[in-house]
Amino acid sequence: MTVPSADTLLMDAAEVDAFIAAAFPEVPDDRRSRIASARPGHVRMTMMPDASHLRPGGIVSGPTQMALADHVAYALVLAHIGPVAMAVTSALTVHFLRACPPMLLTADARLLRLGKRLIVSDVQIWTDGPDRPVAQASVTYIVP
Amino acid sequence: MTVPSADTLLMDAAEVDAFIAAAFPEVPDDRRSRIASARPGHVRMTMMPDASHLRPGGIVSGPTQMALADHVAYALVLAHIGPVAMAVTSALTVHFLRACPPMLLTADARLLRLGKRLIVSDVQIWTDGPDRPVAQASVTYIVP
Amino acid sequence: MTVPSADTLLMDAAEVDAFIAAAFPEVPDDRRSRIASARPGHVRMTMMPDASHLRPGGIVSGPTQMALADHVAYALVLAHIGPVAMAVTSALTVHFLRACPPMLLTADARLLRLGKRLIVSDVQIWTDGPDRPVAQASVTYIVP
Amino acid sequence: MTVPSADTLLMDAAEVDAFIAAAFPEVPDDRRSRIASARPGHVRMTMMPDASHLRPGGIVSGPTQMALADHVAYALVLAHIGPVAMAVTSALTVHFLRACPPMLLTADARLLRLGKRLIVSDVQIWTDGPDRPVAQASVTYIVP
Repeated sequence: MTVPSADTLLMDAAEVDAFIAAAFPEVPDDRRSRIASARPGHVRMTMMPDASHLRPGGIVSGPTQMALADHVAYALVLAHIGPVAMAVTSALTVHFLRACPPMLLTADARLLRLGKRLIVSDVQIWTDGPDRPVAQASVTYIVP
Repeated sequence: MTVPSADTLLMDAAEVDAFIAAAFPEVPDDRRSRIASARPGHVRMTMMPDASHLRPGGIVSGPTQMALADHVAYALVLAHIGPVAMAVTSALTVHFLRACPPMLLTADARLLRLGKRLIVSDVQIWTDGPDRPVAQASVTYIVP
Repeated sequence: MTVPSADTLLMDAAEVDAFIAAAFPEVPDDRRSRIASARPGHVRMTMMPDASHLRPGGIVSGPTQMALADHVAYALVLAHIGPVAMAVTSALTVHFLRACPPMLLTADARLLRLGKRLIVSDVQIWTDGPDRPVAQASVTYIVP
Repeated sequence: MTVPSADTLLMDAAEVDAFIAAAFPEVPDDRRSRIASARPGHVRMTMMPDASHLRPGGIVSGPTQMALADHVAYALVLAHIGPVAMAVTSALTVHFLRACPPMLLTADARLLRLGKRLIVSDVQIWTDGPDRPVAQASVTYIVP
């Protein structure tokens, strides 16, 4: 049996995408966020917002960004612990840093701690470039 | 002009509901969360989850609960500062405490701080009773 | 063996105080925070700040309040799981709500979740009265 | 008058150190944390823990790390807004990632948002190297 490690992926980007698609069959294919890349300790996901994701003023809503932060952290967890385990979010903290324009969102998740039970990741969401994040989140998953 | 105060509502429950409905016209009427009650320092909102709100295992997803926490905090802010001001979420921290069954969700928001610029609220979401919350959140709004 | 439960204390206030005093022998007796009361699901601790706890302006510093929030949460954990287990803080979120005057601080910790591994509590710190908290915190302990 | 910007420091490391020393005269000189470097958007602080900072097991306590996170964020704020303004912490979230050995602590603060009123920073504390943080924190300061 492989012991999860921050230095090794147990699933690659395509495998995680397929696992999530099977787990959430009701999400239409054209509305899924996609894993753009996965490497040990890091997963990048992208998402194109549509009208349902906007709030007054035409900016991307907070709940949309929180859902994306949760999803990319889930993908990061799966990539490192594999498809067997059932993981659930136990806590999430998000800071909204600037108004988020309705453009392609990129979410970068970085592994901060891969414990046997608790997995903590740092997420940055950006549109213009990674040095100007629109949101920063800390997401904790618990592996039961 | 009325100065916002934790002791006075500037909008009642129906006014806040109508304001939110006008601000988010694309949300279908039968999928809105509703304000069940509003009094100084407190707003209660309820929401009936549907299939789109569930995650594998048939429990209510984390993003659904985060969106509800954000909404009830927004309603609490509006009730206390009135319909004029534009308020945006600046930070949210949520703890998921137990699996959330697909039943009517009740979200209780309580005002912790009503500053001129920062409004902090505590939110508890529950299904079985207020003493067994499924989630607890702290939500900060900023009034520009 | 007793299974920890939110409905039962495995240590009373005096036992928790004695356990903490033995675990932190270097803290002088007159500078300890004290457990004022303990009942299932709740622990109250008090602390009198001295000059070393103040920041410019003569108000109680943030780190002082964070340490108190951590301590009362630790006492809550010990009271419910007993003296055997080794518990460490895994996360803490605090909101400072108003300036904290240099008076007796009361910290009320309430159990939100008592899991086998994760214990989440809500803490409110106040001086004037429990309905005007100076700080609110969420504290997560992990039991290894 | 200079408008604060993430691209410019209004105080250098020595000026911030001197400002903090004058503001907190009761902290003995040999127990201060020191600014190791300051550049636009970043401040690094170091601190050598002593016996009073340890918890059972000989590891650096959570409150010690929280205080350090708050201090380095304060230094980051001062470096960017200058010595005039009065800034206070409004919120702090910390995740403890691994046991912190009693060695020299380095705290790296990075500016996430420099608003007119809210300043959000990300802090990583480490001993062995920046890629193995012992704690990650988000710290929000408010400028009154």
